[in-house]
Amino acid sequence: MQDQQQTFVKMGLDAWHNTVKRTDKVLDSISDEQMMQETAPGRNRGIYLLGHLAAVNDGMLKILGLSDRQHAELDEVFLQSPDKSGKEMPDVRTLRRYWAESNKVLNEHFSKMEAADWFGRHTSVSEEDFAKEPHRNKLNVVIGRAVHLSEHYGQLVFLANKNG
Amino acid sequence: MQDQQQTFVKMGLDAWHNTVKRTDKVLDSISDEQMMQETAPGRNRGIYLLGHLAAVNDGMLKILGLSDRQHAELDEVFLQSPDKSGKEMPDVRTLRRYWAESNKVLNEHFSKMEAADWFGRHTSVSEEDFAKEPHRNKLNVVIGRAVHLSEHYGQLVFLANKNG
Repeated sequence: MQDQQQTFVKMGLDAWHNTVKRTDKVLDSISDEQMMQETAPGRNRGIYLLGHLAAVNDGMLKILGLSDRQHAELDEVFLQSPDKSGKEMPDVRTLRRYWAESNKVLNEHFSKMEAADWFGRHTSVSEEDFAKEPHRNKLNVVIGRAVHLSEHYGQLVFLANKNG
Repeated sequence: MQDQQQTFVKMGLDAWHNTVKRTDKVLDSISDEQMMQETAPGRNRGIYLLGHLAAVNDGMLKILGLSDRQHAELDEVFLQSPDKSGKEMPDVRTLRRYWAESNKVLNEHFSKMEAADWFGRHTSVSEEDFAKEPHRNKLNVVIGRAVHLSEHYGQLVFLANKNG
């Protein structure tokens, strides 16, 4: 049981970490100036996607029951508003820092978790619902976030140099 | 053990099916003409991404040990070549059909699998390696494919109507 739990956890965390790694690599290849451009005509700019991803990462602290939010102020601009809403946003360098810090703090928490912890409920599901739907656990959040991150990774690559 | 296996299988398959569902929805909203356009200037066209996704799905039949490939001929154009290689490709309608059929046949196979089957090795890993790395199982392939699909989903949405 313990062994198989650990295998499951590795599968989910690998999906997450591999996607973060690819995203970091593409973000590193995009200049701050390029981040101000649209990923495609009329679509979200790089800066918006970066803020969006930092906000989602920050939200994981809460949904996984790890700690309080560190940058809940990002939600209004990057989750509740579309790009070019006119709302003030941090600059690209600050958002890059938030993104990097969010991954650092998530990794610190993840490294302390036992395999069984991952199969506990996340904070957005009630104990009653969780009893009926045990798949709504913390590891499932991470798998879902990997899929979400990959969607925006696919868009961010359009800002990277074509022959890069 | 059996219960937890089933829970984890549900987590992996949900990630896959939800991503296929979202992709189907966006593909339905893109006309055949729009599929001939680039997702962003200088980037892959919709038709190429559709063929790429159909080829990857078709390859899952083999890597999951479910059946022989049905459209191995897609690999040369959509996996081994970039878009606009000059190589002949099926038209959009045909590729839409291949994509739909590949999901149908995958689902038929998936519905017959027991939870424990998902934790068996996939056909691209040797028995020796699998003994040391049990996470390289069939379910892990599906999770990885969900992440891959989401990347291209994020690009296909750029072909959909902006207010759609």
